[in-house]
Amino acid sequence: MAILLRPASWGLFSWRGYCSRGTQGRLSAGFVEALKAVVGSPHVSTAAVVREQHGHDESMHRCQPPDAVVWPQNVEQVSRLAALCYGQGVPIIPFGTGTGLEGGVCAVQGGVCINLTRMDRILELNPEDFSVMVEPGVTRKALNTHLRDSGLWFPVDPGADASLCGMAATGASGTNSVRYGTMRDNVLNLEVVLPSGQRLHTAGPGRRFRKSAAGYNLTGLFVGSEGTLGLITAATLRLHPVPEATVAATCAFPTVQAAVDSTVHILQAAVPVARIEFLDEVMMDACNRHSKLNCCVAPTLFLEFHGSEQALAEQVQRTEEIIRHNGGSHFSWAKEAEERSRLWAARHNAWYASLALRPGCKGYSTDVCVPISRLPEILVQTKEDLEAWRLTGSASPLRARGPGWDGARATALSSGPPGTIVGHVGDGNFHCILLVDPEDPEELLRVQAFAEQLGRRALALHGTCTGEHGIGLGKRQLLPEEVGAVGMETMRQIKATLDPQGLMNPGKVL
Amino acid sequence: MAILLRPASWGLFSWRGYCSRGTQGRLSAGFVEALKAVVGSPHVSTAAVVREQHGHDESMHRCQPPDAVVWPQNVEQVSRLAALCYGQGVPIIPFGTGTGLEGGVCAVQGGVCINLTRMDRILELNPEDFSVMVEPGVTRKALNTHLRDSGLWFPVDPGADASLCGMAATGASGTNSVRYGTMRDNVLNLEVVLPSGQRLHTAGPGRRFRKSAAGYNLTGLFVGSEGTLGLITAATLRLHPVPEATVAATCAFPTVQAAVDSTVHILQAAVPVARIEFLDEVMMDACNRHSKLNCCVAPTLFLEFHGSEQALAEQVQRTEEIIRHNGGSHFSWAKEAEERSRLWAARHNAWYASLALRPGCKGYSTDVCVPISRLPEILVQTKEDLEAWRLTGSASPLRARGPGWDGARATALSSGPPGTIVGHVGDGNFHCILLVDPEDPEELLRVQAFAEQLGRRALALHGTCTGEHGIGLGKRQLLPEEVGAVGMETMRQIKATLDPQGLMNPGKVL
Repeated sequence: MAILLRPASWGLFSWRGYCSRGTQGRLSAGFVEALKAVVGSPHVSTAAVVREQHGHDESMHRCQPPDAVVWPQNVEQVSRLAALCYGQGVPIIPFGTGTGLEGGVCAVQGGVCINLTRMDRILELNPEDFSVMVEPGVTRKALNTHLRDSGLWFPVDPGADASLCGMAATGASGTNSVRYGTMRDNVLNLEVVLPSGQRLHTAGPGRRFRKSAAGYNLTGLFVGSEGTLGLITAATLRLHPVPEATVAATCAFPTVQAAVDSTVHILQAAVPVARIEFLDEVMMDACNRHSKLNCCVAPTLFLEFHGSEQALAEQVQRTEEIIRHNGGSHFSWAKEAEERSRLWAARHNAWYASLALRPGCKGYSTDVCVPISRLPEILVQTKEDLEAWRLTGSASPLRARGPGWDGARATALSSGPPGTIVGHVGDGNFHCILLVDPEDPEELLRVQAFAEQLGRRALALHGTCTGEHGIGLGKRQLLPEEVGAVGMETMRQIKATLDPQGLMNPGKVL
Repeated sequence: MAILLRPASWGLFSWRGYCSRGTQGRLSAGFVEALKAVVGSPHVSTAAVVREQHGHDESMHRCQPPDAVVWPQNVEQVSRLAALCYGQGVPIIPFGTGTGLEGGVCAVQGGVCINLTRMDRILELNPEDFSVMVEPGVTRKALNTHLRDSGLWFPVDPGADASLCGMAATGASGTNSVRYGTMRDNVLNLEVVLPSGQRLHTAGPGRRFRKSAAGYNLTGLFVGSEGTLGLITAATLRLHPVPEATVAATCAFPTVQAAVDSTVHILQAAVPVARIEFLDEVMMDACNRHSKLNCCVAPTLFLEFHGSEQALAEQVQRTEEIIRHNGGSHFSWAKEAEERSRLWAARHNAWYASLALRPGCKGYSTDVCVPISRLPEILVQTKEDLEAWRLTGSASPLRARGPGWDGARATALSSGPPGTIVGHVGDGNFHCILLVDPEDPEELLRVQAFAEQLGRRALALHGTCTGEHGIGLGKRQLLPEEVGAVGMETMRQIKATLDPQGLMNPGKVL
């Protein structure tokens, strides 16, 4: 049962060789048999197509398939798998829905991908305590469907229908976090299989209290650890009462500054806004086209309010006053559930709307988050950079290409803008969705340089390079600049303590 | 520069020998000179009275003085002190306001107490970003006084005017946490001097974003670490807008169950109540006497609502409906600031009001927190235990005593009840304040047994032995039962990694 470790050889922003370098499973036949003995033969695969499916997420990071994929059906199997792999020096890569955006599931050193989606039970719902415990295959939409008649919901919403344990692993957040917090605020307890196979309950077995001061906050340590410290096999989550009423609206602004100023003033006025999302005019144009909206092509806020009818009326009135004061347009309302769904579907489809602006392109999403007072300057600078790039980028179709050069496609690529902006401005977090020609290595390098420059700009403004997508593969070069040498050393010490062989999702974060 | 390490010899719930075993400083003269070289002679003391002042907090834990007390004036000095002590194997005990309740500052192995109160600057206020950075000597009241004209405040309120960094170290919370969260939710960044003297910024130097997914959540790890991993030398905190209007009220209930049911229903109705505090009838009687209130002697809720005038009216109306439905009395209002202050002063003085019920006694506060659905049963059981104890405890004055036996005092002690109950019921957290004769070793043992039994009862109900006071010295025996063997092992590994010599506030937590 020996395994040949593959050297770390991954690249950012490269589709050359995307899933094309055949990854012959490098696990011995004996080791694969041992995996099958744990989970049963039908739940192990070494087929190339399956491995390739598990070698990438939704990001631009190159596919790097694991050597085998296994589907455990319970936590005991996960424990045995971890112990088996760890005992043989085989890397372990936890896999949920594969909807991450920083290459967190790429098997950069090969190894065994543990797909947790067949553990998909809702283990325990305690409505009176506002808590639920779920297995790692339960997605946020599945949970909210299950909760439909309980009067409760789980509000953290990153857009994708991600698994809740995957969201915990990433430290996800999204559109509702300005009011309801991120995963860091909404995880009460985690069951984690450590590399040794031991089962850790971060807040203690079966615990589901709202607060505690008992020892080190292990729950906080594992939320956002991106699978590098252990496998999350269950999460106890904090639920919230379904609001009595909900209204959503859009509002256009003359400038980015006016939209962000409105956001700050709304927060200062303690209006408990549930969602406050910024879309720049390029993004609005894309959403209009893609989602058949009819919005003004201008910097825009998408807002949502939760509360009683009476509370909503007051929240809306205060918000309208603030927005009027900042030169915003009248609200365009979406009061009915269907209309609201359409609006938020458009917001959640921002990614695809952006891609449609430049057919044939791939997308890369930046994820900086800054103190809210610094948002206007970084947004304005970023838009200037995008515009400069768009102008210089128009030379692209003139570039000579080798065999297979498709002039019509190249023209299409050059005519679109290279990026849109959308963000959770209430948190100071925004995404620049960069639209890149995957066949153009120069452009790929430029995306990388752009993303790094934007990350460094956020760092210079007391911000972070990642508000919610995680470090994964793509931002490892920025993490030391963000947390400093002592921060890196402390994180490395923790990693080395909990994963001494460095086999848990290797190559990520640190 | 050698130090003799004192053997670990501390006792819980014992005033015998309280500060009476002379603690001769065991630091060499050379080492004391080295301390003086760092902070200046006037900022070092080895006087017995000073050391004894620093050897205990507000709890019943026996005074265990350090060998020296130093007052650094800046973080560079803290770094040099830490490196000096660590290099010589001398224990380090961080000290703030000494208002803890679990013996967190007791120098159980001697060593150097680092009193951080002379570092008391508010370093940076960023109102637009809702953040402030404070040194460890800044207390919560000092901060809120400083913020008075900013439209912002810091809501975490454990009652005592504790230092904010001390509150971070303990993972404190208090009356406002049902709405605004605990210290875990309101610390954005910490500057920590590690045992080596290195300076760590848990979220990176100068960072003050609202959210991040960058690497391991070191901020979360250090909040609640009780000085066992490093010295907190600055905290960046999240501020909140001052509510436009505030009203407070009290409401009496026929039973504990009715009061707790009301709490659950208020939370389920998504009423954003700012404070919801439970006081049992014994506690109410004590508050009436001590704070000259005129409240009904019954299980009671103290409530506070924050919002606009209009929002308040609605919150109050909904709450009144719920309370009426559960058999509660009409609200007794405290709308004016002065009246409100009087009400909350009475709540905050619950400790002293309890002590006054049984003159000559000491108090010990339990701190369990359970899922809110389990509150009624644990409260009712606890009240039954208290009553049983009160009845059997009446035998106390008949016990023969040695010389100095004060019959009158003994009668006073026996006539009072042994405990009151007060709690942050919105979080499932309550305190039983036990009133104990400090001269009665049997009663001391009984307090210890009662507290342990209550802790275990909370654990059996999926709760925690400490919602907000921390583990300190007093709950170390319960922590393994709460977090399990793997949890303890993980915490011990982290402690060993960050404090390999075990010199940071030794004997606490683990």
